[in-house]
Amino acid sequence: MSLAAMQVLVRRNEAGIAAAGEALSARFGARVARTAAIREQHGHTTSWLPNQAPDIVVFAESTEEVAEIVRICAEHRVPVIPFGTGSSLEGHVNAPGGGVSVDVSRMNKVLAVHAEDLDCVVQPGVTRSQLNAFLRDSGLFFPIDPGADASLGGMASTRASGTNAVRYGTMKDVVLGLTVVTAEGKIIHTGGRARKSSAGYDLTRLFVGSEGTLGIITELTLRLFGQPEAISGGVCPFPDVASACNAVIMTIQSGIPVARIELLDTLQVRACNAYSGLGLAETPTLFLEFHGTPNGVKEQAELFEAIAGECGGGAFRWSSQAEERTKLWTARHNAYFAGIGLRPGCKAVTTDVCVPISRLAECVAATADDIAASGLIAPIVGHVGDGNFHVMVLVDVTDAAEVAAAEAFVERLNWRAIEMEGTCTGEHGVGQGKMKYLKREHGEALDVMRTLKQALDPLNIMNPGKIVVI
Amino acid sequence: MSLAAMQVLVRRNEAGIAAAGEALSARFGARVARTAAIREQHGHTTSWLPNQAPDIVVFAESTEEVAEIVRICAEHRVPVIPFGTGSSLEGHVNAPGGGVSVDVSRMNKVLAVHAEDLDCVVQPGVTRSQLNAFLRDSGLFFPIDPGADASLGGMASTRASGTNAVRYGTMKDVVLGLTVVTAEGKIIHTGGRARKSSAGYDLTRLFVGSEGTLGIITELTLRLFGQPEAISGGVCPFPDVASACNAVIMTIQSGIPVARIELLDTLQVRACNAYSGLGLAETPTLFLEFHGTPNGVKEQAELFEAIAGECGGGAFRWSSQAEERTKLWTARHNAYFAGIGLRPGCKAVTTDVCVPISRLAECVAATADDIAASGLIAPIVGHVGDGNFHVMVLVDVTDAAEVAAAEAFVERLNWRAIEMEGTCTGEHGVGQGKMKYLKREHGEALDVMRTLKQALDPLNIMNPGKIVVI
Repeated sequence: MSLAAMQVLVRRNEAGIAAAGEALSARFGARVARTAAIREQHGHTTSWLPNQAPDIVVFAESTEEVAEIVRICAEHRVPVIPFGTGSSLEGHVNAPGGGVSVDVSRMNKVLAVHAEDLDCVVQPGVTRSQLNAFLRDSGLFFPIDPGADASLGGMASTRASGTNAVRYGTMKDVVLGLTVVTAEGKIIHTGGRARKSSAGYDLTRLFVGSEGTLGIITELTLRLFGQPEAISGGVCPFPDVASACNAVIMTIQSGIPVARIELLDTLQVRACNAYSGLGLAETPTLFLEFHGTPNGVKEQAELFEAIAGECGGGAFRWSSQAEERTKLWTARHNAYFAGIGLRPGCKAVTTDVCVPISRLAECVAATADDIAASGLIAPIVGHVGDGNFHVMVLVDVTDAAEVAAAEAFVERLNWRAIEMEGTCTGEHGVGQGKMKYLKREHGEALDVMRTLKQALDPLNIMNPGKIVVI
Repeated sequence: MSLAAMQVLVRRNEAGIAAAGEALSARFGARVARTAAIREQHGHTTSWLPNQAPDIVVFAESTEEVAEIVRICAEHRVPVIPFGTGSSLEGHVNAPGGGVSVDVSRMNKVLAVHAEDLDCVVQPGVTRSQLNAFLRDSGLFFPIDPGADASLGGMASTRASGTNAVRYGTMKDVVLGLTVVTAEGKIIHTGGRARKSSAGYDLTRLFVGSEGTLGIITELTLRLFGQPEAISGGVCPFPDVASACNAVIMTIQSGIPVARIELLDTLQVRACNAYSGLGLAETPTLFLEFHGTPNGVKEQAELFEAIAGECGGGAFRWSSQAEERTKLWTARHNAYFAGIGLRPGCKAVTTDVCVPISRLAECVAATADDIAASGLIAPIVGHVGDGNFHVMVLVDVTDAAEVAAAEAFVERLNWRAIEMEGTCTGEHGVGQGKMKYLKREHGEALDVMRTLKQALDPLNIMNPGKIVVI
């Protein structure tokens, strides 16, 4: 199977695209772009999947404008693909049937911060870093932190998470409400600002993770958290990935409310040393962070140290200095670029899976063996407190045999995770790249997903060719 | 508007009910019940809404049996209403068009406890107390605790929560996966045992809170939590509800990870004193509980004491003695029965709303004024850490003017909460009693809910006449 074969065919509606293009140009003028460079940049660029550019890019500036665009596309039966920063990894913003990319990056205002309720209202183009910069002096922060500085609309759409998820949850846990433009171009509001509700179907969580296939998110109400009184953290080396995973398992089972617990395998540590100048011993390493009161973080760190010792870990080098911590976590967030630096000129085939934590050590060890046996260069890094890990296979895409080996490895990894009662994606989403795993993971529930797609997008114009095919 | 007017008419299909009844008797024999007493017990009994008994009750013993029952009902276009313990409060198990009550109370096995993954798999008839009794020696517990000892299937169906929600979340946060019988009688599995997933639409959270209107839950995978190393708690009196609410708001905003923070107004304290012999001063009172390490709970309690003092609260009487705490929380859980004891022979009109916490003091104070002005007897009690509170209006149902006053008060309370960016129900669910508020709360999003109902239950046989009408 070639990379392109993972992309479902969506028939092009040439006449519709032409007519919608005219209507959009008439309405939005210079905010409609058709140059090859802009089109290609709005197809998939951070993915290993072939780029499928949209025909038209429209830079929307309000919910009402997004609704207008969708109504025009619905009238002409043309695909609509929402675009934030384009940092998703599984082909989410590709346009297999062409159509219109709705770029919401100019919808980048923080509309309200309700400090007293620990929530805020943002437009979908605000990135996680922008939001946290905005919040800097408020004593609050937004914890969800995927590797990229993604847009919050995109993060909600892919049900993103990151290093803090083990303590603060994923986007499904922090999105309180949404404004959504439906496939008919109507504007609806889901959820709200109450901390909980039992008032009907949970539309908020239906749209979170739906990757633009059921509607376009144009506003988000998000939970915020108080900046912890004290933060401490550090690194702990282990002789092998299995013992590091065992330390993670025991830490979680002990109920230590760890805020971050991340695994980097030997190759990834080497990459981060080279890219970010960390100077760590090149062995599997856990990066940790604890949030709480001064006494609380001390207690947590001591409990972890004891566990790490039992599991064969080396000395836990810890720090409560903000600068040192920032260096560590910046390096962790740059793991993707560090990995790419291991083999310049290669493409990164990035994949993520998630298993019950009891199976983590087994799954990571089997995957490490598989990498070795396949002769691939593929660092492992992961949010192991959730049982979630990533493998980045560095592939010379001009070498057909290597591409085939990488693809076969990724497939085996996904089947392995599903067989261990896990999932084919913990946080990257389905897009195009993971569609083929859904039948085995969900069985007949996939038919229910298809029924929902059919009901909410009967014309199949909302990001078609992703998640499920109708 | 009379109580009965809140019940949507569902046309009876007499021929279908007769035919389904024959098929069910042939298949399930003595496990099919038709006596008036059993039928009435399976209509609504804990609600103030008129009882609408089903025609037939079937005691199911497995997922496959539930699927068979649903297939028979689908064939004959007969309503199917799932029944756990019947403790819901808004008419959820009433049968406005007659039909078949599927009693799952015999499906009461804990199927698996995965201590290492902090999860378990249960049948829907297991109650929250049964599960915690089962877990007693495991070091784990299940935190969601509505007032009643409800079934876990019912709790998932109504998106229940309780006193621990401020720390541990609601059913939407702790249900990892479900087995569901669809309206066609197919068996599907949603979610799974991985701690997180981005693999497609969030069917788990679509079925959680859908009150049996989209499918019947027949198995649940639930998150568990480690029993905290240390627990402390106690009571704190306040001069009025507004100052108590202000202390709650400051506690939440300060990021104190309080496990429980509950308000009882003066009347409710009086009721609990009488029913449970608490001997508390009869003034608005907060009940609190802190979970953590020994140092952690001490720190939390001290921080709270300082806040309570600033807000005009009296001495915080705290205890780390298990017996004293149990007495307190048992009294809190019995608040419903204590309230009824205030006016023997009356019916309790119980309603719940939830508002952003910044509006809590204002909403509770306005509601207390409204109760006084209406001349009603109506204690207030609530999970105020979430902005959620309950009012129980004690009504002499033979007095038409009093019934009318109670209904008008409940309506005003719900509109007030919605106008304060809140919700008409924080945890009881919609059932029949809250349907009329949904249009104002959800606007056009209600049409999307209707579209989902139509798509997943085109014959309208799954608990018809609840949440949305198609």
